[in-house]
Amino acid sequence: MNEFELIDEILQALGDATGAPGVRVGPGDDSAVVAAPAGTDVVASIDTLIAGVHFPAAAPAALVGYRALMVSMSDLAAMGADPGYALVALSLPQADPQWAVELARGLGAAAADCDVPIVGGNIARGPVCISVSVHGWVPAGFAITRAGAKPGDQVYVTGPLGAAAAALARGGLEDYCDESSMDDLARAYFRPLAQLTVGQRLRGVATAAIDVSDGLLQDLGHVCAASGVAAELEHDSLPVAPGATVHQALSGGDDYELCFTCDEVPPGLGSEAVRIGQIVGGSGVFVDGKQLDVAGYSHFAQ
Amino acid sequence: MNEFELIDEILQALGDATGAPGVRVGPGDDSAVVAAPAGTDVVASIDTLIAGVHFPAAAPAALVGYRALMVSMSDLAAMGADPGYALVALSLPQADPQWAVELARGLGAAAADCDVPIVGGNIARGPVCISVSVHGWVPAGFAITRAGAKPGDQVYVTGPLGAAAAALARGGLEDYCDESSMDDLARAYFRPLAQLTVGQRLRGVATAAIDVSDGLLQDLGHVCAASGVAAELEHDSLPVAPGATVHQALSGGDDYELCFTCDEVPPGLGSEAVRIGQIVGGSGVFVDGKQLDVAGYSHFAQ
Repeated sequence: MNEFELIDEILQALGDATGAPGVRVGPGDDSAVVAAPAGTDVVASIDTLIAGVHFPAAAPAALVGYRALMVSMSDLAAMGADPGYALVALSLPQADPQWAVELARGLGAAAADCDVPIVGGNIARGPVCISVSVHGWVPAGFAITRAGAKPGDQVYVTGPLGAAAAALARGGLEDYCDESSMDDLARAYFRPLAQLTVGQRLRGVATAAIDVSDGLLQDLGHVCAASGVAAELEHDSLPVAPGATVHQALSGGDDYELCFTCDEVPPGLGSEAVRIGQIVGGSGVFVDGKQLDVAGYSHFAQ
Repeated sequence: MNEFELIDEILQALGDATGAPGVRVGPGDDSAVVAAPAGTDVVASIDTLIAGVHFPAAAPAALVGYRALMVSMSDLAAMGADPGYALVALSLPQADPQWAVELARGLGAAAADCDVPIVGGNIARGPVCISVSVHGWVPAGFAITRAGAKPGDQVYVTGPLGAAAAALARGGLEDYCDESSMDDLARAYFRPLAQLTVGQRLRGVATAAIDVSDGLLQDLGHVCAASGVAAELEHDSLPVAPGATVHQALSGGDDYELCFTCDEVPPGLGSEAVRIGQIVGGSGVFVDGKQLDVAGYSHFAQ
């Protein structure tokens, strides 16, 4: 099977996921072409998943594909963006059509769940490496950044934390072959949901937002640093996922809930947003008055 | 050096390359934000370069970075797009600040030459793998695809072909450490120029276009297949780069000239566009009446 035959197989597996209103040119040309809605800013992010680093090398390809797209879409959610389009660059050590096709099925399932078309990509021979580039739209000037939190704002998260970290700590993730066999912890790791709808509702409401990918302490620390403020969290308010420890909820990554700041609970988010603390002057993140070491995931930490 | 310190070093090396008018949020947030010009379509492409596959593993990082961005921008040129923004995902086996910073210098030099800001990226631990996602704008509906060539059109290329293939065939590319030491063949390989200005002039003029990345026969074959036509080339018209063979000009990749079809020489392209043949009914690519095997680069060919 040559490169072009493999691409055909992948496109078949993606099926409907490559098209949407506004997609003028999908996969197969030098570039894709997508109509840009009037009066918008483009919101853009890229992420790479490496076998053995970002997912167990033996994990089922469809689950890896699902997670790969969702992880990137989460970065759009954190900005309050509407989904626009995605590109996927895949390298594989050799032609393994079955693995690539399963990966594409997972990418397609996530694309359907996010309502984002996968309009193009690239395939190359190399170590297993998946780069996903995602693009969305916000009304001009309405992207939510990390930099707007101010003293007096409240700090919220959109759901329980620590489940994905607990799943990783438990191990055995490579034994799951489909969603029906998963418990809640495995599902938290393999089937994260980018909080796109919540993010969109936060436009014009949240003063800052970030997705919890590297751990709450580290990610909220980025918000504080970008905004020039400090955060005071209350241990008792923290929504710890069933099966996870407080440490995993504070420091574990991979949950992809949003953490955001605003001066009141946004309308329509009453049941989804959990208040965990407040923004004050200063710097750093404190839990019950004590500044904690940030122990999230850093790829090159010694 | 941890991930965040490395990112700081890379951003310093990129310098001015991360900003431009219209960039509302550059590197450092969950996503970048770029104002979309009114009335445009977004043109989008992604490419991956793997050490040992797409460039000699020992090649100087700055040259690799320059080439990585240019190769992707060439896909925008082939659609007639104005440069918009670029994202870069890099994986590295270990913290090698010097290599990453040199790579960033090369990316920044190419970004300056293309007038495109690098607004975001990602860094991860893994095998050396560089994915570049590029985005540009065309007036709505004016992207040039591969699918519009029709019998009676003439076939053009924007410059001599085969030099990059000749450089690869000669070998020793890892010995070049900067541009001043290069001859024309090495420069063709390491310093390709995306034909953005020519591509923009072809909007509304060319019926189809592609960049010559995998070899003229293969790439023109894609145009013919997408358009449902055949191409008849004339051996004597082919602009063979000095130092290259006819075979390299026909089948060698990596030149990144544009090949396009139109019914007359576009105004202002008289000296740059070389007519090499014509479009006829049928299928396939013929040279002096003989259909040649397509022997361009296919990543998974056995």
